[in-house]
Amino acid sequence: MAANGIHKLWGGRFRAGEEDLMEQFNNNFKDTHWLCDPDIEGSLAHVAMQVECGLLTEGEGAQLTEGLLGIQADVHSGALPLDDRYEDVHTFVEANLIDRLGEVGKKLHTARSRNDQVNTDMKLYVKRETAHVVELVEAFLQTLRKKADENPYIMPGYTHLQRAQVVTFKYHLMAYHGMLQRDRHRLQSALENMDLSPLGCGALAGTTHPIDRAFTAEKLGFAGVYDNFMDGVSDRDYQLEVLAAFSILMMHLSRLAEEMILWGTQEFGFVTLDDRYTTGSSIMPQKKNSDGAELIRGKTGRVYGDLLALLTVMKGLPLAYNKDMQEDKDLFHDGLETVLLSLTMMERMVATLTVHPEKMRRAVSKGFLNATEVADYLVAKGVPFRDAHGIVGQIVLYCEDRQTSIEELTLSELKQFCPAIEEDIYPYIDYENILHKGIKKEML
Amino acid sequence: MAANGIHKLWGGRFRAGEEDLMEQFNNNFKDTHWLCDPDIEGSLAHVAMQVECGLLTEGEGAQLTEGLLGIQADVHSGALPLDDRYEDVHTFVEANLIDRLGEVGKKLHTARSRNDQVNTDMKLYVKRETAHVVELVEAFLQTLRKKADENPYIMPGYTHLQRAQVVTFKYHLMAYHGMLQRDRHRLQSALENMDLSPLGCGALAGTTHPIDRAFTAEKLGFAGVYDNFMDGVSDRDYQLEVLAAFSILMMHLSRLAEEMILWGTQEFGFVTLDDRYTTGSSIMPQKKNSDGAELIRGKTGRVYGDLLALLTVMKGLPLAYNKDMQEDKDLFHDGLETVLLSLTMMERMVATLTVHPEKMRRAVSKGFLNATEVADYLVAKGVPFRDAHGIVGQIVLYCEDRQTSIEELTLSELKQFCPAIEEDIYPYIDYENILHKGIKKEML
Amino acid sequence: MAANGIHKLWGGRFRAGEEDLMEQFNNNFKDTHWLCDPDIEGSLAHVAMQVECGLLTEGEGAQLTEGLLGIQADVHSGALPLDDRYEDVHTFVEANLIDRLGEVGKKLHTARSRNDQVNTDMKLYVKRETAHVVELVEAFLQTLRKKADENPYIMPGYTHLQRAQVVTFKYHLMAYHGMLQRDRHRLQSALENMDLSPLGCGALAGTTHPIDRAFTAEKLGFAGVYDNFMDGVSDRDYQLEVLAAFSILMMHLSRLAEEMILWGTQEFGFVTLDDRYTTGSSIMPQKKNSDGAELIRGKTGRVYGDLLALLTVMKGLPLAYNKDMQEDKDLFHDGLETVLLSLTMMERMVATLTVHPEKMRRAVSKGFLNATEVADYLVAKGVPFRDAHGIVGQIVLYCEDRQTSIEELTLSELKQFCPAIEEDIYPYIDYENILHKGIKKEML
Amino acid sequence: MAANGIHKLWGGRFRAGEEDLMEQFNNNFKDTHWLCDPDIEGSLAHVAMQVECGLLTEGEGAQLTEGLLGIQADVHSGALPLDDRYEDVHTFVEANLIDRLGEVGKKLHTARSRNDQVNTDMKLYVKRETAHVVELVEAFLQTLRKKADENPYIMPGYTHLQRAQVVTFKYHLMAYHGMLQRDRHRLQSALENMDLSPLGCGALAGTTHPIDRAFTAEKLGFAGVYDNFMDGVSDRDYQLEVLAAFSILMMHLSRLAEEMILWGTQEFGFVTLDDRYTTGSSIMPQKKNSDGAELIRGKTGRVYGDLLALLTVMKGLPLAYNKDMQEDKDLFHDGLETVLLSLTMMERMVATLTVHPEKMRRAVSKGFLNATEVADYLVAKGVPFRDAHGIVGQIVLYCEDRQTSIEELTLSELKQFCPAIEEDIYPYIDYENILHKGIKKEML
Repeated sequence: MAANGIHKLWGGRFRAGEEDLMEQFNNNFKDTHWLCDPDIEGSLAHVAMQVECGLLTEGEGAQLTEGLLGIQADVHSGALPLDDRYEDVHTFVEANLIDRLGEVGKKLHTARSRNDQVNTDMKLYVKRETAHVVELVEAFLQTLRKKADENPYIMPGYTHLQRAQVVTFKYHLMAYHGMLQRDRHRLQSALENMDLSPLGCGALAGTTHPIDRAFTAEKLGFAGVYDNFMDGVSDRDYQLEVLAAFSILMMHLSRLAEEMILWGTQEFGFVTLDDRYTTGSSIMPQKKNSDGAELIRGKTGRVYGDLLALLTVMKGLPLAYNKDMQEDKDLFHDGLETVLLSLTMMERMVATLTVHPEKMRRAVSKGFLNATEVADYLVAKGVPFRDAHGIVGQIVLYCEDRQTSIEELTLSELKQFCPAIEEDIYPYIDYENILHKGIKKEML
Repeated sequence: MAANGIHKLWGGRFRAGEEDLMEQFNNNFKDTHWLCDPDIEGSLAHVAMQVECGLLTEGEGAQLTEGLLGIQADVHSGALPLDDRYEDVHTFVEANLIDRLGEVGKKLHTARSRNDQVNTDMKLYVKRETAHVVELVEAFLQTLRKKADENPYIMPGYTHLQRAQVVTFKYHLMAYHGMLQRDRHRLQSALENMDLSPLGCGALAGTTHPIDRAFTAEKLGFAGVYDNFMDGVSDRDYQLEVLAAFSILMMHLSRLAEEMILWGTQEFGFVTLDDRYTTGSSIMPQKKNSDGAELIRGKTGRVYGDLLALLTVMKGLPLAYNKDMQEDKDLFHDGLETVLLSLTMMERMVATLTVHPEKMRRAVSKGFLNATEVADYLVAKGVPFRDAHGIVGQIVLYCEDRQTSIEELTLSELKQFCPAIEEDIYPYIDYENILHKGIKKEML
Repeated sequence: MAANGIHKLWGGRFRAGEEDLMEQFNNNFKDTHWLCDPDIEGSLAHVAMQVECGLLTEGEGAQLTEGLLGIQADVHSGALPLDDRYEDVHTFVEANLIDRLGEVGKKLHTARSRNDQVNTDMKLYVKRETAHVVELVEAFLQTLRKKADENPYIMPGYTHLQRAQVVTFKYHLMAYHGMLQRDRHRLQSALENMDLSPLGCGALAGTTHPIDRAFTAEKLGFAGVYDNFMDGVSDRDYQLEVLAAFSILMMHLSRLAEEMILWGTQEFGFVTLDDRYTTGSSIMPQKKNSDGAELIRGKTGRVYGDLLALLTVMKGLPLAYNKDMQEDKDLFHDGLETVLLSLTMMERMVATLTVHPEKMRRAVSKGFLNATEVADYLVAKGVPFRDAHGIVGQIVLYCEDRQTSIEELTLSELKQFCPAIEEDIYPYIDYENILHKGIKKEML
Repeated sequence: MAANGIHKLWGGRFRAGEEDLMEQFNNNFKDTHWLCDPDIEGSLAHVAMQVECGLLTEGEGAQLTEGLLGIQADVHSGALPLDDRYEDVHTFVEANLIDRLGEVGKKLHTARSRNDQVNTDMKLYVKRETAHVVELVEAFLQTLRKKADENPYIMPGYTHLQRAQVVTFKYHLMAYHGMLQRDRHRLQSALENMDLSPLGCGALAGTTHPIDRAFTAEKLGFAGVYDNFMDGVSDRDYQLEVLAAFSILMMHLSRLAEEMILWGTQEFGFVTLDDRYTTGSSIMPQKKNSDGAELIRGKTGRVYGDLLALLTVMKGLPLAYNKDMQEDKDLFHDGLETVLLSLTMMERMVATLTVHPEKMRRAVSKGFLNATEVADYLVAKGVPFRDAHGIVGQIVLYCEDRQTSIEELTLSELKQFCPAIEEDIYPYIDYENILHKGIKKEML
């Protein structure tokens, strides 16, 4: 019996009790209640296999199955509180099973170790939740396309945050569609790469019992089993791969968040975020702060931190299981929760965004956004590109000095810079026309 | 009124209510209950200053002070539960104050913003807790010295994890004493560097009220006030500086943890960790796993992640406050809790460690650990160091082929390699003597 | 003309010259010579497309093609030195082309921007080099399997670096085979996900010229083109995805490196690294330091740093191109070079490793490595697993006190702990037999 | 002789030569030429001490000193090329010394190891360069103050990138003055904390020679020596502490860079960066991109990566020296070079910045930037702050609907919201007056 009166699974050998300090340091049950369902799911498959392989009688199997389902039901209903004095979820479930069933409960753990058990639990959890993130990505892809289609208005396209060329709001938004498609590919590839069951790998070396790993793998929905037991218990790649995909995904969201914050300033004024995703100030009542977007931008750092932390934890660990690996749970769970909320929030923010086409149109006309097209025009007239580029530079300087725009210059002014310029330059560089030329048509 | 029925401080302007999603995303009260005491401490100083400067009457000041102390007492006793539906700790305290005091409660926030308030709260918290870590470091320094003094036994010193030269266990442990002294310096320097009060900086631009920042600074134990309001509300350096010091400290602990794990293997066998800091296996009853040390080693990655995350959050943020900064609380708190537990745990593990001098002595004799001293001997006989080095290399190869050690070679065997070798080589390279020569005496 | 006498592509507009400081800060040519080949490859495809689409005559196309090939040949032969005063590789190539061809050289850049050009260069480079890493992974997989097959010897399997159960050296090595297979999957998935050509996306908004993006994509070996121009010029996902895969790969190598270092200590003595991958000490001639493995372990941190740095660079950048993105080149290149060298080195180290089966066999017999099998035996005799576990704990304590092993106890001694134990326990727990039982057979 | 014909210091023992691969992996000379001066400086002190302690005759000492100074002079003049086939700087210097002096050259390394030597070299380098960074910080502090004093113009102060309250450009810039002062404190504290000499610690255990560590420490300008040899050779804290200070410093620069980029947009228009720190576009001649600022912002990620990489390298390393630590050189040097360039660049950019007061003044009047002062006014009239806050919210909504500003409302309109409002509200909320009230005066 440990100090807190809860029996430890491995307590047989130890002469001295464990101090409260170690309890606090080692105990991870309070932060991993979400492993309860996967743990019971894994145990149900294990019991079915034990019966199949003759390690349990049919009757014992039925008793254990019923006991596990009863615990699950009672946890869901709240009848069985998740008592955080237990060291971990495995201890909680097994101890309650033995309480309920007596001797037969002690047979559950035959031919299994906590090492393969916990990795099976985490695999089930990571698979389910990653699939959930994929669904959210797909919903967001649809919202992006819908919002894009509703907003075909022209706006300045920026590089270096300087107005550069004309694009459309629709097209700008669809850039994120491209990014999110790659995110989906990454998550799906991670799901494929992780689809092996650790159950049956034992502590690190399988078991002398004649178990059937393929049976439990199939029952749990895995495509197969690990080739190697030692790899099966010490693999945390799948969490790292998903956290890396999450980091890139959050990076994408942080870029869109940055743009929403910029576009929502008084200076840009291109969009208004829905009131639900902004907050006010306790002292400046006029403020409409883009909190939703700022939080997403900030939480990106958090997910990077989770990835980096787990990479650091795993670096240089000898095989097979080491206790350091226990850090995986908090880190993955934190990254996951952050991504779930951020994706949902961003989808809602895009869906409810109000766009101001007139503000964007006004910004287009003030930025020499047709300078590139002047160069293209000159090229079409036979001027080599590098020379055309130099000529346009001179024209822009001339306009800046006079606070005018290229399309407002007279033909004779234009001809001073290059005699090849003709009347047809005006339609060529007209903002409404530009997007109908060459491959720019794709932007419409 | 927001959806959850809790009034928001900034709710005046908004037409639409905030969605539950945003509540969940933005709400940080549930994870920041530990800010309650510093928040009330800051408000008490603010009230005293308001009276001093004529913003409140003495009577109002007394009412508010009593109200705040009452809330604090009721929170401590549990009579006032920390209701997580409140957006943050400031809202919780102010709303309860208004409930208790009515109109006068609404005057608390005069001449203050949540921006300076929250940074004041965090400063108070970080100062107090960092000072606490310094105390733990000092306790650990004492334990290291005591354990070192009790264990003056010789052992192999390693480089590249290869036995290299003779040292003592005492001396090896004292290497960590050096590291921890630098950790203390870093933490103390951070405490000096952060000792400025943000209270009175307002949202970003002070206030038109004639407040006295120096008054609250002194009352709260700060050495002074920020030169600049905008810096005062958007500075998170102090958390970063402490997290960086924590990261280096954890790195030190991770090295000692690694050594404890190595020394506790059957292969090394130099030490036995106290049973309180090891755990057993649910399937391999003979195991005595160094869980305490492994957890410290693993949690090092976690603290690195917290540092990195906060650095990333702060990168490229325009002045002054942005909501991204709210991520600071979870990140700092997580790093702090990890360090507090890890330091305490490591101090206990060192204090209760059992050392096996005979195993270390045996390892000394099998490693050619006097080879350097043979070279030193040759140098003392006039052989240039580089030549001496080559000669010893040949002697070691000769010994390895014969599975013997240098001190077991006969004088004539030794003379084959260098005629300058005489009988006095034997005492020179005797393991018990070596540590009495030259500056090696410092290791005793 | 800039201060250093080299013409800048964008120099037309600027009145003041660029200071040397900015030259130094901005110039990246000296560190990106490896982009020269991909840059010319991209330009060759661009020229072919320009001819195809009527932007160049056949003759101009032939001239430009010949000019580009000439520059490439001269760079390879050393006749054309890579002059680091050029701002970047694009400027270097174009300026030399104009030098050689005159006017026609100025037409190369028509319908292209440095933004799509540089991302095309990097894509070509990353694709080629990632495919190279996949080849090295495959070579390493073969070496692992070969080395494993050659070393079927039993050894202790460890968890928590404590001897746990019997495994084989072969099987231990094959755990890394599993890891590297997942690395390959990740790299191949990244190759699929990145297989889109940026060429033709222009600065951010395509071009008014009637170009054919599919033509250049096919010519350059891409599966397709980006859906979106803005995404095409500002996408750095492919580098992040590969760096993330590299980080996980390096983590695997760092684990194997750690084991090689441990196994190569005098305390373990399981393997000897080939002299080529160890180094000596300038002062301790007997040392045989596992430098190759230590360098790989250390360089793991370096690759993590590259990944993290690029993630941080990209966070929160508004569309489309920003100069921050230029940091990608050094970071990716550093990560790549580190992985190429580390993988090659590790493959060589494994291939040339000397294994010491007798040392591993000796370690097996001293570690109660059959304790789990005693429990399995009891379970087979009808004892519930949890009870069996407790009984074995008592037996191990009994053996430890007497400094003996379980298999050396008499049957009557064993029966004291559990009367169900019979004579057949001895063959059941014999180390040579264990691996022939249950699913442990897979380890042979 | 190794494959490349260069003698290795530790080559005595090894039977097989080292492969080219290991040469490439291990060789770090080509990237550490900057260690040549510190290495010779350390050797000169070591020689002087050897004479002092009788390990060398006066004549030998003079010869070695002359030899070392000759090598240094020849390296500086270019007469002695830095031949990258040498493994490291130590080998290069010693081999050249032996070439020049013969036998006496072989005595240089007596009573020293590469482990204490390399850490001495790095300490000297890090101390010198960190002091250099402190000087640049001080220069930048002066420039900030000067630029601030020259630009006392009012501008909008932002929170959440929303206009919030009136500040001045001067005051905004001085926020960075506060940040940089803390950076200086951190760097100076790091300089204090690192001021111990490693020379004489030997490989890890000092030496049997009667050397004088205090002598070399004083000669090299250190405040003292390490208490512990093992700590002295394996301490890399000083690099981590400086890299952490660099990371926070770069974070500050990244914030200012972000603001320069924002302020330089057409939308804000508050400042114009000097042409020297902007670049143009090869295709959009009108662009004036804030490349200098973008590069600084981007390179922040790079320095974070260097810090993180070195923290990861050092995690969990057993004492004393391990080859992993060799990664320190590239990582520190990369971080240092980035900081030196970024600080210099930023100082120049601030010094040469053109500020547009009229654009900032125009932005002030359009943002309800006196809303807080309306609340302050109401509080001064006796309205509790929370109620005042709600009233102002209503006024702002009213103004927004009518597209007007608060100061343009009539008194009777204002009185509808709160009868306490009188004629004196107009001067109270006048933008020019606000900064003369309460503690806001500090902003002037």
